[in-house]
Amino acid sequence: MKTDNQNIKTVNGVNVTRLVDTINLIKETPEISQFKFRATNKWQDGTYNLATVRDFYGALQEDDSRDPLYFDIDEPPVLLGGNKGANPVEYLLIGLSGCLTTAMVAHAAAKGIELRSVESRLEGDLDVQGFLGMSKDIPVEYQQIRVTFKIDADISEEQKQELIDMAQKYSPVYNTVSKPVTVMVSLNKG
Amino acid sequence: MKTDNQNIKTVNGVNVTRLVDTINLIKETPEISQFKFRATNKWQDGTYNLATVRDFYGALQEDDSRDPLYFDIDEPPVLLGGNKGANPVEYLLIGLSGCLTTAMVAHAAAKGIELRSVESRLEGDLDVQGFLGMSKDIPVEYQQIRVTFKIDADISEEQKQELIDMAQKYSPVYNTVSKPVTVMVSLNKG
Repeated sequence: MKTDNQNIKTVNGVNVTRLVDTINLIKETPEISQFKFRATNKWQDGTYNLATVRDFYGALQEDDSRDPLYFDIDEPPVLLGGNKGANPVEYLLIGLSGCLTTAMVAHAAAKGIELRSVESRLEGDLDVQGFLGMSKDIPVEYQQIRVTFKIDADISEEQKQELIDMAQKYSPVYNTVSKPVTVMVSLNKG
Repeated sequence: MKTDNQNIKTVNGVNVTRLVDTINLIKETPEISQFKFRATNKWQDGTYNLATVRDFYGALQEDDSRDPLYFDIDEPPVLLGGNKGANPVEYLLIGLSGCLTTAMVAHAAAKGIELRSVESRLEGDLDVQGFLGMSKDIPVEYQQIRVTFKIDADISEEQKQELIDMAQKYSPVYNTVSKPVTVMVSLNKG
């Protein structure tokens, strides 16, 4: 924990003073908590496509201040690709890893729990017969995803387990994956 | 469509001959269709963490032939981050965009439908009160995700709609998001 001379409290690199201010602002004006996140994608060739992330809506305004971020998406050769990037189901694991980590770090910070390191490994089981449409009995989706965390901090095993419970409780990607979420897919007829 | 002098048929850059061979191989030896995809993550500071993708298991063997791929994950300043990368819920959209696109392109190829271009825009609604633990009535997860496709091909609107239906039916990330998937999160006590 660190408190600078402007009385800003920082734990785990998270500005807890601003976190608390944000919560108070949302209590006054709940609409500022509504965000819209976005991505675009352009197919390149075969299993290779390119996604772009840039603008989002949040805190009552459009934000396009970031430079665009580009993401190559491809399959490995065994899945008919050219290895030009991670594949889509790997990107889902990347998002899940980051979301559980940030939920854990931020909620630990809010509780004043200092962390030295947080590492995780993720593995998901996928039977590609689903993708290939070979069997209606095999799920198309991940059958199970396992995440193992290694936490270095001066806290008990029980407190580490509480951090893991909080990460799951407050992670948007974890909850998007573990619960059903409506995805509306439509054709632009323009 | 392209057929080279070794009789390899390629549609939309997808090697359809190998696709059919793969399906036949799986029919003989179903275990080759079992894949395990992986990611690791190391927290850096605050909302910034770094994911790595490299090895996976599939077609009865471990594959670590790829160079590691690194992904910076961070939040924008309005969410207390330093904009060092896309955020976790954006990575989920990236994966979803790639998965729907590849499912569409591959299944179109299998049906001999040639595509000139496929583009998509994704947007997901998130109320950060869920992440902040401010209200039990507000979902932590994406409340809804919308995907709009623009397809350029010499096919009818009805056939384009069929491509969109196939993309949803066969996309592992779409089905992981729209259905409940078990995510086991545990503590490495080592």
